[in-house]
Amino acid sequence: MLGTLNFLDEAKRREGAALVRRGVSFSLAQSFDMNGPQKGWRRRTNPVHTMLDTGTDAERGTQGFPHGLGGADDVIFMPLQASTQWDGLGHIFDHGRAWNGRRAGDVVTSDGDAVTGIETVASLICGRGVLLDVGRAIGTGGELPDGFAITTEHLEATIAAQGESAHVGRGDLLLVRTGRLARARREGWGDYAGGPSPGLSFTTADWLHDTEIAGIATDTWGFEVRPNEFDVAFQPLHQVAIPNMGLFIGEMWDLDALAADCAADGVWDFFLTAAPLPVTGAVGAPVNPIAVK
Amino acid sequence: MLGTLNFLDEAKRREGAALVRRGVSFSLAQSFDMNGPQKGWRRRTNPVHTMLDTGTDAERGTQGFPHGLGGADDVIFMPLQASTQWDGLGHIFDHGRAWNGRRAGDVVTSDGDAVTGIETVASLICGRGVLLDVGRAIGTGGELPDGFAITTEHLEATIAAQGESAHVGRGDLLLVRTGRLARARREGWGDYAGGPSPGLSFTTADWLHDTEIAGIATDTWGFEVRPNEFDVAFQPLHQVAIPNMGLFIGEMWDLDALAADCAADGVWDFFLTAAPLPVTGAVGAPVNPIAVK
Amino acid sequence: MLGTLNFLDEAKRREGAALVRRGVSFSLAQSFDMNGPQKGWRRRTNPVHTMLDTGTDAERGTQGFPHGLGGADDVIFMPLQASTQWDGLGHIFDHGRAWNGRRAGDVVTSDGDAVTGIETVASLICGRGVLLDVGRAIGTGGELPDGFAITTEHLEATIAAQGESAHVGRGDLLLVRTGRLARARREGWGDYAGGPSPGLSFTTADWLHDTEIAGIATDTWGFEVRPNEFDVAFQPLHQVAIPNMGLFIGEMWDLDALAADCAADGVWDFFLTAAPLPVTGAVGAPVNPIAVK
Amino acid sequence: MLGTLNFLDEAKRREGAALVRRGVSFSLAQSFDMNGPQKGWRRRTNPVHTMLDTGTDAERGTQGFPHGLGGADDVIFMPLQASTQWDGLGHIFDHGRAWNGRRAGDVVTSDGDAVTGIETVASLICGRGVLLDVGRAIGTGGELPDGFAITTEHLEATIAAQGESAHVGRGDLLLVRTGRLARARREGWGDYAGGPSPGLSFTTADWLHDTEIAGIATDTWGFEVRPNEFDVAFQPLHQVAIPNMGLFIGEMWDLDALAADCAADGVWDFFLTAAPLPVTGAVGAPVNPIAVK
Repeated sequence: MLGTLNFLDEAKRREGAALVRRGVSFSLAQSFDMNGPQKGWRRRTNPVHTMLDTGTDAERGTQGFPHGLGGADDVIFMPLQASTQWDGLGHIFDHGRAWNGRRAGDVVTSDGDAVTGIETVASLICGRGVLLDVGRAIGTGGELPDGFAITTEHLEATIAAQGESAHVGRGDLLLVRTGRLARARREGWGDYAGGPSPGLSFTTADWLHDTEIAGIATDTWGFEVRPNEFDVAFQPLHQVAIPNMGLFIGEMWDLDALAADCAADGVWDFFLTAAPLPVTGAVGAPVNPIAVK
Repeated sequence: MLGTLNFLDEAKRREGAALVRRGVSFSLAQSFDMNGPQKGWRRRTNPVHTMLDTGTDAERGTQGFPHGLGGADDVIFMPLQASTQWDGLGHIFDHGRAWNGRRAGDVVTSDGDAVTGIETVASLICGRGVLLDVGRAIGTGGELPDGFAITTEHLEATIAAQGESAHVGRGDLLLVRTGRLARARREGWGDYAGGPSPGLSFTTADWLHDTEIAGIATDTWGFEVRPNEFDVAFQPLHQVAIPNMGLFIGEMWDLDALAADCAADGVWDFFLTAAPLPVTGAVGAPVNPIAVK
Repeated sequence: MLGTLNFLDEAKRREGAALVRRGVSFSLAQSFDMNGPQKGWRRRTNPVHTMLDTGTDAERGTQGFPHGLGGADDVIFMPLQASTQWDGLGHIFDHGRAWNGRRAGDVVTSDGDAVTGIETVASLICGRGVLLDVGRAIGTGGELPDGFAITTEHLEATIAAQGESAHVGRGDLLLVRTGRLARARREGWGDYAGGPSPGLSFTTADWLHDTEIAGIATDTWGFEVRPNEFDVAFQPLHQVAIPNMGLFIGEMWDLDALAADCAADGVWDFFLTAAPLPVTGAVGAPVNPIAVK
Repeated sequence: MLGTLNFLDEAKRREGAALVRRGVSFSLAQSFDMNGPQKGWRRRTNPVHTMLDTGTDAERGTQGFPHGLGGADDVIFMPLQASTQWDGLGHIFDHGRAWNGRRAGDVVTSDGDAVTGIETVASLICGRGVLLDVGRAIGTGGELPDGFAITTEHLEATIAAQGESAHVGRGDLLLVRTGRLARARREGWGDYAGGPSPGLSFTTADWLHDTEIAGIATDTWGFEVRPNEFDVAFQPLHQVAIPNMGLFIGEMWDLDALAADCAADGVWDFFLTAAPLPVTGAVGAPVNPIAVK
């Protein structure tokens, strides 16, 4: 039921923790606010944050609390995949089948994902993280162009370029930086959400399977290259990876600060805790991933 | 600007990571769903999770994706303090003043917290966690009764009972278990949200300050004892701790599984990553804290 | 496709308009706020209204508008059937079939009601309204007790008691007052939402059909008597009336002020405009019904 | 407290009802969905409608209701001014003052508008409506160009062109069609929300006051001409009309079908019911206005 997270065991967590040498921590989350890339596709808005109580009211003394107390409180409305997130195993189906061959309608109804809801992995996603900065290794100015399909060869070349600390194996949480987010930050969001982007090639499916990684995340909207490599498909690597491999995929992660640090000290692995908000039955969940080196 | 998180330095993170011996991980989050304790006080509802796309639809083939692809997607509406959360430094004011003496209205308007929004600490909250199971040490059947005020003496007695791994000092993230959540789980929520509860006594303010802890969290709705200890105040320890000490307070954490493990192996400290969802300008934020032993 | 609204024709609207004699208007809506009866059943919360901008902020001058302009703005999250509402024809299915024999899954998916969404009747619901105050005619102190099943005989007796202006026929919008809301207002909501209540008996189905009314609304949560009259059914009159008759049913209307006026002047019919908020694809919709006498 | 709605009295409602000659009704609402014009300005998204239960689920038999019952239910998140709406009197302030000279912070806090919330006019807004199709009378192809400021002269010329039924006076609900919505419908939303648009000139303020109309609505985003007529102001006519005149302003109404009918039969007045959804404390409210001729 846990898909590739079954590869992430206690030994891997010990290995991850041992990578903490300096004690410096990085958040790999984008900010959650209205300044995000969403444009409404399939009802995905940016997160809308509103206040239930404010300091302005508190200062004015209208809140009715005793003895000088004032408070502020707030609320959010957001698509669970509006910003930095994990796809749950109920997010994608292949010909009506969810992960493990279950009928899609036996898994995800209007009540949410009754089988593989994100809460089932609430405690699991921490261990050894490894960053492959393909943008830096293969691209120009640290960025791959839109439409660039990252192949197994590119991944292997990046590992080779980065050295021993960049090895990828069973149970690892793999982060792939393309530079797409850096470009969006510089040029404006444009079509970051759903438009052209570098990303994993469909041809990496075997490699993703054979390495037995526990999960993979990118700094792009949709993990795989856009436009997709087949005319008659939509996000075909998702269609293979989620319902057929049980792979955990993270999207819209911000890997830039971590990548700069790794480039500086030449160490590309770290302890990564990427605990999804455990919304019961969610097929995706926001996350604030923390890498510690 | 970071309040007590200034005490949490890189050395403390190294110390925390060194506590990972077995590699077992615990989520300290309650689930985020409609089965929570909220009853609408000050417009705080439980989290409402709805689906944008479902497996039922995908299986029926009505989604319009090519080549057998199906998808599920979802959205949430929730008060940021509906479930397991951190209070931000803009959450509470004292006589119109926010943390660091700023005027409350200069900090938190309808646009959110422009100064100490939770995103300002997005990367910081990971380090050594230590659990004081006061419910177990002082209570009956592992639980303190409602209205029980935990004093400095109770905290010190619990540290003494738990032994060396339970020492508390500068930069630690302190978790205090009262047993209140276990009771709610057994008996139903009742008035868990805002009603009678064990919790920290107002008299612990000096101890909280002097220990220079980086943050503190409990398994209760409101951190401090309820009813409060003064007739003419509401959450008076908040009023001291947040705007005057800059203390980070966590509420509604689920410490039960971790506490059982600590009792079993006699080790009460661990590596804790408690990264709030970085909602820009938020005065509180949901979190899925992960403890690794 | 319009169900019983096909009975509401232009002649009926002329007849309705001719009933405006004094020019006094009544809103038949409850207020939309957190003080409503919802308790979270099937994720139905009360409406949550939050501010995007406030007068407190405007007065303090922090909004950034030029030349002394200030603004306030707001947002709402609400189940569409949280308060005064119309059920759409896609709200209830009978053995997998929606109104007009369509398969339920061909009508209402996660994208909403593609066939009978409430927007399809956006302009139609105005005409002759007639109020039957069964609580007053049959009950005690103007109220029927909980569990009281209103039969055809009770409806006919109320018509007889109220006189000629209370006749009910083809194309009319029928309002049935039970007194349940008045009781809730006096005693607190209690189980107004889903609990015991007076309401229409299942045995009125033929009468509802034969009268060819265009719609019917009550001052109760669920239109029909609660508990329901059969052990092995849930809201059985809905199951007959919506998917099989195409009847428009209104719930949680506030009929008290209008009823008092009708009792005072002895005139029980009026011009009624009950235009649902045209949320595209909605299976129910909030409404502020206006009766003019 | 009711502002210009004080002009709308019972005689005016009788006059309005007498205008119902054919019994044909028009909804003047745009649809409430994600296909609207909002782009996120000041956190205004389009309405997000999601399902709590669907027909797909019902047909599949997974809902757990007895005896073949199935249900669909839904929820909405929307800024109250996302689509067709009334501005409440608490929407705009002038130099820190709300309508009737109250301090803005005494009227609208994070809890909403405590004085002039839209619920205070829930029952009032029905009476004689009159449509001035300035786009048709003055424009080209029924449309005024963006940036066109409608002056008193244009209004008077339109009244003269349309004839006796277009007279405007005390207590009337005035609808002004510019053709802007028709253009957006033809060309796409573009900058309908906040961008260039025809609209009322600031110089009509006296006329709006002197006619003693009860309210005015347009088919544009912002009622007044855009760009505004002064460099150092934002929506200056709002700043005069709402806090200083107490004028009710409607925006984003769809007047096209009604206008076509009026042009066809030469009758420009009708019975108008435009009852805002009575969200307690709202400073604006969605509405489905119904005109009956």
